[in-house]
Amino acid sequence: MNILVINGPNINMLGQREPGHYGDISFYELEDLIRDEAAKQGIEVDFFQSNSEGAIVDCIQQAGSYDGIILNAGAYTHTSIAIRDALLSIKAKFIEVHLSNVFAREPFRHHSYLSDIAVGVIAGFREDSYLMALNYFANGVWQ
Amino acid sequence: MNILVINGPNINMLGQREPGHYGDISFYELEDLIRDEAAKQGIEVDFFQSNSEGAIVDCIQQAGSYDGIILNAGAYTHTSIAIRDALLSIKAKFIEVHLSNVFAREPFRHHSYLSDIAVGVIAGFREDSYLMALNYFANGVWQ
Amino acid sequence: MNILVINGPNINMLGQREPGHYGDISFYELEDLIRDEAAKQGIEVDFFQSNSEGAIVDCIQQAGSYDGIILNAGAYTHTSIAIRDALLSIKAKFIEVHLSNVFAREPFRHHSYLSDIAVGVIAGFREDSYLMALNYFANGVWQ
Amino acid sequence: MNILVINGPNINMLGQREPGHYGDISFYELEDLIRDEAAKQGIEVDFFQSNSEGAIVDCIQQAGSYDGIILNAGAYTHTSIAIRDALLSIKAKFIEVHLSNVFAREPFRHHSYLSDIAVGVIAGFREDSYLMALNYFANGVWQ
Amino acid sequence: MNILVINGPNINMLGQREPGHYGDISFYELEDLIRDEAAKQGIEVDFFQSNSEGAIVDCIQQAGSYDGIILNAGAYTHTSIAIRDALLSIKAKFIEVHLSNVFAREPFRHHSYLSDIAVGVIAGFREDSYLMALNYFANGVWQ
Amino acid sequence: MNILVINGPNINMLGQREPGHYGDISFYELEDLIRDEAAKQGIEVDFFQSNSEGAIVDCIQQAGSYDGIILNAGAYTHTSIAIRDALLSIKAKFIEVHLSNVFAREPFRHHSYLSDIAVGVIAGFREDSYLMALNYFANGVWQ
Amino acid sequence: MNILVINGPNINMLGQREPGHYGDISFYELEDLIRDEAAKQGIEVDFFQSNSEGAIVDCIQQAGSYDGIILNAGAYTHTSIAIRDALLSIKAKFIEVHLSNVFAREPFRHHSYLSDIAVGVIAGFREDSYLMALNYFANGVWQ
Amino acid sequence: MNILVINGPNINMLGQREPGHYGDISFYELEDLIRDEAAKQGIEVDFFQSNSEGAIVDCIQQAGSYDGIILNAGAYTHTSIAIRDALLSIKAKFIEVHLSNVFAREPFRHHSYLSDIAVGVIAGFREDSYLMALNYFANGVWQ
Amino acid sequence: MNILVINGPNINMLGQREPGHYGDISFYELEDLIRDEAAKQGIEVDFFQSNSEGAIVDCIQQAGSYDGIILNAGAYTHTSIAIRDALLSIKAKFIEVHLSNVFAREPFRHHSYLSDIAVGVIAGFREDSYLMALNYFANGVWQ
Amino acid sequence: MNILVINGPNINMLGQREPGHYGDISFYELEDLIRDEAAKQGIEVDFFQSNSEGAIVDCIQQAGSYDGIILNAGAYTHTSIAIRDALLSIKAKFIEVHLSNVFAREPFRHHSYLSDIAVGVIAGFREDSYLMALNYFANGVWQ
Amino acid sequence: MNILVINGPNINMLGQREPGHYGDISFYELEDLIRDEAAKQGIEVDFFQSNSEGAIVDCIQQAGSYDGIILNAGAYTHTSIAIRDALLSIKAKFIEVHLSNVFAREPFRHHSYLSDIAVGVIAGFREDSYLMALNYFANGVWQ
Amino acid sequence: MNILVINGPNINMLGQREPGHYGDISFYELEDLIRDEAAKQGIEVDFFQSNSEGAIVDCIQQAGSYDGIILNAGAYTHTSIAIRDALLSIKAKFIEVHLSNVFAREPFRHHSYLSDIAVGVIAGFREDSYLMALNYFANGVWQ
Repeated sequence: MNILVINGPNINMLGQREPGHYGDISFYELEDLIRDEAAKQGIEVDFFQSNSEGAIVDCIQQAGSYDGIILNAGAYTHTSIAIRDALLSIKAKFIEVHLSNVFAREPFRHHSYLSDIAVGVIAGFREDSYLMALNYFANGVWQ
Repeated sequence: MNILVINGPNINMLGQREPGHYGDISFYELEDLIRDEAAKQGIEVDFFQSNSEGAIVDCIQQAGSYDGIILNAGAYTHTSIAIRDALLSIKAKFIEVHLSNVFAREPFRHHSYLSDIAVGVIAGFREDSYLMALNYFANGVWQ
Repeated sequence: MNILVINGPNINMLGQREPGHYGDISFYELEDLIRDEAAKQGIEVDFFQSNSEGAIVDCIQQAGSYDGIILNAGAYTHTSIAIRDALLSIKAKFIEVHLSNVFAREPFRHHSYLSDIAVGVIAGFREDSYLMALNYFANGVWQ
Repeated sequence: MNILVINGPNINMLGQREPGHYGDISFYELEDLIRDEAAKQGIEVDFFQSNSEGAIVDCIQQAGSYDGIILNAGAYTHTSIAIRDALLSIKAKFIEVHLSNVFAREPFRHHSYLSDIAVGVIAGFREDSYLMALNYFANGVWQ
Repeated sequence: MNILVINGPNINMLGQREPGHYGDISFYELEDLIRDEAAKQGIEVDFFQSNSEGAIVDCIQQAGSYDGIILNAGAYTHTSIAIRDALLSIKAKFIEVHLSNVFAREPFRHHSYLSDIAVGVIAGFREDSYLMALNYFANGVWQ
Repeated sequence: MNILVINGPNINMLGQREPGHYGDISFYELEDLIRDEAAKQGIEVDFFQSNSEGAIVDCIQQAGSYDGIILNAGAYTHTSIAIRDALLSIKAKFIEVHLSNVFAREPFRHHSYLSDIAVGVIAGFREDSYLMALNYFANGVWQ
Repeated sequence: MNILVINGPNINMLGQREPGHYGDISFYELEDLIRDEAAKQGIEVDFFQSNSEGAIVDCIQQAGSYDGIILNAGAYTHTSIAIRDALLSIKAKFIEVHLSNVFAREPFRHHSYLSDIAVGVIAGFREDSYLMALNYFANGVWQ
Repeated sequence: MNILVINGPNINMLGQREPGHYGDISFYELEDLIRDEAAKQGIEVDFFQSNSEGAIVDCIQQAGSYDGIILNAGAYTHTSIAIRDALLSIKAKFIEVHLSNVFAREPFRHHSYLSDIAVGVIAGFREDSYLMALNYFANGVWQ
Repeated sequence: MNILVINGPNINMLGQREPGHYGDISFYELEDLIRDEAAKQGIEVDFFQSNSEGAIVDCIQQAGSYDGIILNAGAYTHTSIAIRDALLSIKAKFIEVHLSNVFAREPFRHHSYLSDIAVGVIAGFREDSYLMALNYFANGVWQ
Repeated sequence: MNILVINGPNINMLGQREPGHYGDISFYELEDLIRDEAAKQGIEVDFFQSNSEGAIVDCIQQAGSYDGIILNAGAYTHTSIAIRDALLSIKAKFIEVHLSNVFAREPFRHHSYLSDIAVGVIAGFREDSYLMALNYFANGVWQ
Repeated sequence: MNILVINGPNINMLGQREPGHYGDISFYELEDLIRDEAAKQGIEVDFFQSNSEGAIVDCIQQAGSYDGIILNAGAYTHTSIAIRDALLSIKAKFIEVHLSNVFAREPFRHHSYLSDIAVGVIAGFREDSYLMALNYFANGVWQ
Repeated sequence: MNILVINGPNINMLGQREPGHYGDISFYELEDLIRDEAAKQGIEVDFFQSNSEGAIVDCIQQAGSYDGIILNAGAYTHTSIAIRDALLSIKAKFIEVHLSNVFAREPFRHHSYLSDIAVGVIAGFREDSYLMALNYFANGVWQ
């Protein structure tokens, strides 16, 4: 099983960025945490991060062969129809994750262009949001 | 660690009810699945289900001593300020879960009166939504 | 053929309640009228009334074996997604009826959470609304 | 007792038109069905159909002497204030009927310019919608 | 003169619940305060509290013989058309009270289904909101 | 100077129709009143009335040679873009008139598709609305 | 017969102010025009102009003895509930007039707090709007 | 203890103005009633009334030394951000009162620019609204 | 291959009507242009124009045997559900065309009741809009 | 070059009023700061402040001879069409300034009736907002 | 004549992507089809495709010398003001095309930031949408 | 003191682009003007321009060491949550500037995702908007 983790704009600032919302661990610590958990589960995991909507679309278009995608599209969650269309174009099986509880923040973060075409949504558990998604791909009862 | 699992209206119909949205396992199989996982994690788990908004409010008011609540308020998610207020009245640490991907359904299921006061939200993974929440309470990196 | 007639909140106050909207006959006279008509048509008819949303959900969940339901959910018509979900959970064949012409009243009575999953809607004919529904189940040309 | 049945635009296409919504019987079969039922009840019944809003207004203005009108204004239900005004100008006692369950269709079919001035509304019972209205005029307990 | 005080969901949690909004006195102290004032004014006072919308509707339907009702419907103020209808069904003379200033809170607390059929509204004075209402029934200049 | 007076749907019912809004004089008395005033002012005046939107469009398309149009489009005021377009197609100099004060009636009568391309609007003065418009064409200080 | 003409904010700038909307005659010429016409009709006419909402309210409160008011409330038409209340407090019989066609201007000029309690509305005829209103009070067929 | 009672536009018309909403007593009788009650409670009370938004702002800016303000801003309640800002500028402890039940009137009276910064709101008790506020300042259990 | 070209209200005024939007050629020149192009492509083409919504509905109901319809419904594009229903009743394969770029005009021209059931939409190319549609029916790569 | 600085309601409370939004310097210190800067730039500067909308309208009507106006209309920015009209009536060249960042405050402060007719807008720089505007009039590269 | 064809995000996935909406031909086949048609018409044609909004803006800024642009901005049609501004900055003469009938899809695809500044819009004809645009540039009667 | 000036999409087209909104000077002249003023004030100034949202996010993430940022995000002002998040991630002290008066243009330019987290906003002064911001950073009285 191989999984692609895509992180959108400003997720690379983790640790420096609004710790009240996003917590203290750095972006590299987040990737390590996921890599360790994946190793434990016997899953191959690749990572991609970009601040550019177009680069994320490019990346998704190439991702057709992964067994699953864990996607935190950051701010583009709320503004990008292009990322939605890219996911539809490869019929991606993906989980939408968020570090923060987006529903407890500004109203413009309550709508997602991605949720309705995702397997499901996990929001608010900081780094655990990713680990939950990973474990679902590895061990989910229902799939 | 003791956890309370609260299920709202019509969740007791699981297995008979719209399998396209909710899957095939019965409500009792769902409870067994959660109970087994809890046992494996060394967690005590209690269950409550009611079709009555008032009974759910009553239950939450008594639930102040639990370490965590896993709450699938079903249709009341979208209409009940009373359940929101009950959760606030005991300062409950709770996770909002949904069997189905509510964001892929009717617009009136896209708004929740509960999400912004939850630890987080997990939606769309059928029975796994509960197991993920349970695992988070047991093993979450960040809490 | 057996039919269940479900009346929601405040329908039990019939006769005492806002006669301009609901007319003068009492709730018991309404039930008698329906029972007489049913007898004439050779239909078995049962009755349920409650002011509690949860009790109505409970009742509907048990009603899977009826040939049809005549449902006047009263005020819950406009606020209850739980009753909608209960009806969906048993794939109920039901007719939505109203004593008063809800479209001639406050705007919040113009929307129903139930109409789009009903066979049809009959509103404004006072006690005749129920009798029309009964006759449709008994003698409808199209079903 | 004499009753006028007015059918609006495209109802004349019945049988050929979207059978999923409107059923298989033809417009002439519908009229026959109503005529037969009227005969059985000892009611005189006249028919009018037009695709033109203005012609329907003209017709209503002449209809002051009927004991009741059964009106399926079709698409004009949702767009015509002129038909509303015509009905008000003769203080018509009319029942609004629809073949299909308009509440289960596009949002622009959920609003009617006519409902609040009707005796009542019957929607979704195909040809039975007309027969119910006819029976109400003939035998309604409350009028 | 006899007055009924009805408290809705979560008011029984007073003292434990969000003291910033609701203050420190307990629900029993609140009832005592009202009972004492009533005694001073020579008024008989009865109390009812429930977390269930249906139970509150049941209670109101029986309350036709009271000279006045003081109603804090809590969260149901904003969601319950059924309670509105119950109040209309007995032509209740009631005052809507709130402990907190609902207008200084979330937007969904700014609308009430009850205010327009109340004698008046008193909000934001904590326990004094009830005492003001009691005094109005006892000594109001205009009634 | 020649003036065309166009009356839309249901204006021909004047005298029989909702006298609270429209007054007691008949449609023919209205035309006489206008004809007499026109004669007094030395103006030629022609009349057109139809209940059909299309017929009114036809009429306007032929009306390019009149010095002015007095237009009471009745219900079509609020629903007809076609009449607007017809007026624009002949660059008509027209005055919008209403018998009743449309701003004191249902919200759907507060918007006009015609007002912004009219010389001006006169509403609420019953038959005098027409006479004012006529006098403006005859004697207006500013034109 | 005595008539009061009230002009609101910036009407005193007539002649200097946006001639495309308001024309070229000065405010004093406007008053003269009205005074002359009133003399011709044997009507007594008084004038009031202020840029202050409060002063206009004060003026209206004193105006109970006039036979009619011609009111151009200017910008306050669209923002002042206080002027509405003043007109209601004296049960004023007033006509709302506007120099420009307010419906052909910014959307915030399309709503009036005054129209629904006026006898009628006249807009778009520049100085003639006032003269029409005056003539209606003097000679109106219907009043 | 010294209290300032501020009345906004048209409150001075009390007794003459829409008695269905405001009752029969005159503005001077209202002031007397308050003065008497204040005397009984040993409170000093001052009065201010104006129809001008600016004058009310001026007054509030000078009112910093009062122990409390009872404010019926009348129509300005719904339109004046300037009065809100004046109250904030002196950190006024004030109660918003209304003679009529504003929530039972036009929709534009349901929103207040003042409620969320008031201690509380009292509406619908006619002259008693003021007396309740006065008593709260004098004897309120919670302050 | 036979094609029907339907033109709605005011299209017959082409050449005289707002040339900034619609261009200078006359309605007859437009028909000639289409007829010539059709001849070149070996297509039979018929024409229908009416200002009446009902007449257009009548026409469409008869048009079931055409291979395709080119429809410029003019103003009825934005207001007619009846024309939509007529098109659905014959399962018409039609192209929606507009002479002007409707998206660059008033907001009420941005919504069409027809677009979602058309093969496609062509707007803004004046007379070429029709020729493009004709060529698509004749030579389209995809159909 | 002569410049008029107009300050609206509650700006005179500067220093005492919500220092978090408006800062600590007093209104008189603000005027001094502007006067000193103007002197340095060789500009004549006049000041006007009022809490009354009408008085500000009066002032603007007299201000036609100034080379520029610096306008902080305070709360009237968001509610006054009368001030907009006054500015239009003298074709004022004015800059809209705000002490606080209005876009970071309540939603009702995000809309201005003045911005679209101003040269430009400067908001959020406290006293510097005025000095920037002054410098623009004195030294702006583009004007 | 030289034409630039710009394709936005995910158009490069043609053939693999949602064939129900976009058809079966590949992106390269689409380009070939256009190139062949252009050759037939004697037009030079260049192609650009990118998934990046910024790259499309860069491209448009360089495109000032083309005789026309055929633009399928894909998802950016609905979200990009930057592309609109780029088109305005070079005063581009461009046609907006869509493969699918965007009006028959999700509501967020019904609004375009580009349509009102285009020559015209062609949507729903799959690959023919481009060919129609090309032919219009080559042979359009009106330009 | 070192300042970073960031210009978003299409600002590089200055001089060629819609001179009515943006003026005649070129982008390079704008940079020179700012550089000269900065030199005069003894400030170091760096420049960045990109048409890519992602590149602007990248740039802001690196800009944590600047004393201030002058940001004209162009069209991204209205659509980019990603740029907002980048600014928040470095706790940037920035001023939002616009060449044109965005409030006098299309409604979609009236909302900014950036204003509420800026120090302040300067719009409409063309090149002077930047110079004002620069001077504020250099000499602002309040900071």
